[in-house]
Amino acid sequence: MIEWQRGQTVDDIDTPALVLDIPTAERNIRRMADRFAGGPVRLRPHIKTHKTPLLAHKQMAAGAIGVTCAKLGEAEVMIRAGIPEILLATEVVGPAKVARLVALNRHAMVITVVDDADAARAISDAAKSAGLRIPTLVDIDVGQGRTGVSPGEPALALARQVAEMPGLSLVGLQGYEGHLQHLTSAAERERQCRAALKKLTDTADLLRGAGFSIEIVSTGGTGTSQFAGEHPGITEIQPGSYVVMDSHYGTVEGLGFEQALFIVTTVISKTRPDVAIVDAGMKAASIDSGMPLVRGIEGAEFFFAGDEYGRVVFDRPRSDVRVGDRITLVPSHCDTTINLHDHMWVMADGKLEEIWRIEARGEIR
Amino acid sequence: MIEWQRGQTVDDIDTPALVLDIPTAERNIRRMADRFAGGPVRLRPHIKTHKTPLLAHKQMAAGAIGVTCAKLGEAEVMIRAGIPEILLATEVVGPAKVARLVALNRHAMVITVVDDADAARAISDAAKSAGLRIPTLVDIDVGQGRTGVSPGEPALALARQVAEMPGLSLVGLQGYEGHLQHLTSAAERERQCRAALKKLTDTADLLRGAGFSIEIVSTGGTGTSQFAGEHPGITEIQPGSYVVMDSHYGTVEGLGFEQALFIVTTVISKTRPDVAIVDAGMKAASIDSGMPLVRGIEGAEFFFAGDEYGRVVFDRPRSDVRVGDRITLVPSHCDTTINLHDHMWVMADGKLEEIWRIEARGEIR
Repeated sequence: MIEWQRGQTVDDIDTPALVLDIPTAERNIRRMADRFAGGPVRLRPHIKTHKTPLLAHKQMAAGAIGVTCAKLGEAEVMIRAGIPEILLATEVVGPAKVARLVALNRHAMVITVVDDADAARAISDAAKSAGLRIPTLVDIDVGQGRTGVSPGEPALALARQVAEMPGLSLVGLQGYEGHLQHLTSAAERERQCRAALKKLTDTADLLRGAGFSIEIVSTGGTGTSQFAGEHPGITEIQPGSYVVMDSHYGTVEGLGFEQALFIVTTVISKTRPDVAIVDAGMKAASIDSGMPLVRGIEGAEFFFAGDEYGRVVFDRPRSDVRVGDRITLVPSHCDTTINLHDHMWVMADGKLEEIWRIEARGEIR
Repeated sequence: MIEWQRGQTVDDIDTPALVLDIPTAERNIRRMADRFAGGPVRLRPHIKTHKTPLLAHKQMAAGAIGVTCAKLGEAEVMIRAGIPEILLATEVVGPAKVARLVALNRHAMVITVVDDADAARAISDAAKSAGLRIPTLVDIDVGQGRTGVSPGEPALALARQVAEMPGLSLVGLQGYEGHLQHLTSAAERERQCRAALKKLTDTADLLRGAGFSIEIVSTGGTGTSQFAGEHPGITEIQPGSYVVMDSHYGTVEGLGFEQALFIVTTVISKTRPDVAIVDAGMKAASIDSGMPLVRGIEGAEFFFAGDEYGRVVFDRPRSDVRVGDRITLVPSHCDTTINLHDHMWVMADGKLEEIWRIEARGEIR
């Protein structure tokens, strides 16, 4: 059980603590929503970043048409929390998962994606037995080299097969340019993003020409949302990180979102003048996108010192840093860092308002 | 809720799944215990690796004198599960944590470590108010450059202060040579380990010469346990990874433990002849010690392809690998990988026996 009191500051809360600055997160939510408020492109934010139902509801209240999930387990959490429409952006494979997908469609609309005819047929068979037709997107590889069939004819061939399956309803395409999200230069990011999106929208046109009704063309993360939002033929985008941001996205030009997520640590050892050991290691912050940054102490750098320890190295002896002091970090990768934590300390104006359970943390299936 | 049935094989269980081969883990537990069964050095295994009470109890049944924990939250889980004696190997700092340490000592013996006089005094004051004396080790930096005071005179100076504190009972020293655990060469590992241990045992002798009773001299991980176990003056060791092992420890010479931990994944996309996309990414396997290995498929290599995806690249086109197939990975770092999972699939002879909750997962405070 976590001991806490409303009104505590970072100096009082127990650590390591994942802190969400809620006014900043709310500004980020509003900013992204405002960009798409007038246009034809709609916003379906990816919740694999925050994994927290109340943040999803805030995104819906700001104008999102639903949310995107990576895993069935995330979709189950969101549906139990009342989110009515979900795009499940990852292929559903295997009898256990197909059964879960069909069961979920009794309570909410869950759009699925496919890139393989046999896997699609397994979903169709189960849906048909349950008297359902599951809305389905053909997943296109627009250059990331991950999931998805190739654009053009291979996509058309799979679309023809899906259209024949009685338990599926072909409603569109997905193509995620994940490999472009962190290109630092805005101009280069835009150029490559436009080329990737053209593959997707050209394929949509090809399928429309073949008589299919393509209502959804989904793409776009935080790094490419501004281009995807203006690209003719795109109907919706699925960014996630913009709500909280991280130091990796912080290096990307022209995004316009603010850092809302922090890790508060305590100095637990200070036996050397220019080094402090803090209580957050690789079990409290992810390192797949590099080391977290130290916030608000010039010349201080963070290094991991094991699963449960971090080493903060100063550029000079610091007798003013003592055992018990707090040091705040900026996560390098928000998604994988949030996934390490069971709770968020929700703060406003430096005061603790509430602690939220990260309900979909660990939902990897 | 996880759907499962006793007797399922890796082809039936839902994925990604963290699989523990329990006969192998039990052999590892027995092997380490047997090494220390006759000698003066005792075994107090670190449970930050497996975070699972039943494995701790199996270690106790094999002869361990207690367990070592990194965090109070882990100690709380272990004590609730009936483990009677714990070494908390990390400095306890701050009023919230000091109060928890004192509260735990009502239910079990929790030995604490200190490297700072003010932090030690805070624990002493709280313990005294509760009418307790908490057994305490002075933490020594034997070369890792993390926590701990320097060996020799600085350690003696802190010991003198601790001995005066009414709520603490000075019982020994800790010095962890964490920086040496993964040195590949057994000879080089032994040479450096002996030098580090000498700093620790020399300091113990110095303190004994000054009149202190030093009953505990604790050190040693999986990579150095064989040397620590033979080093005169060491009284106990605290290895953790040996129970399950990982591919990083797999490269270290002469350890004698077997791989017991695996991640079973499913191929969810196979649109290219020599690449399979599986359903495990950075939220299912840690990468701080490199990529997991692919088990049992020659010429196959695993790369991360995002938070929820992995890319398995084969050395040739593989039409025999299909969507829905299972691919098993060997984690590169057991501690940080286990910490990503809520459950272990406990298997024997290829059949599922039970699913265990990883009770102390996420206990980072």
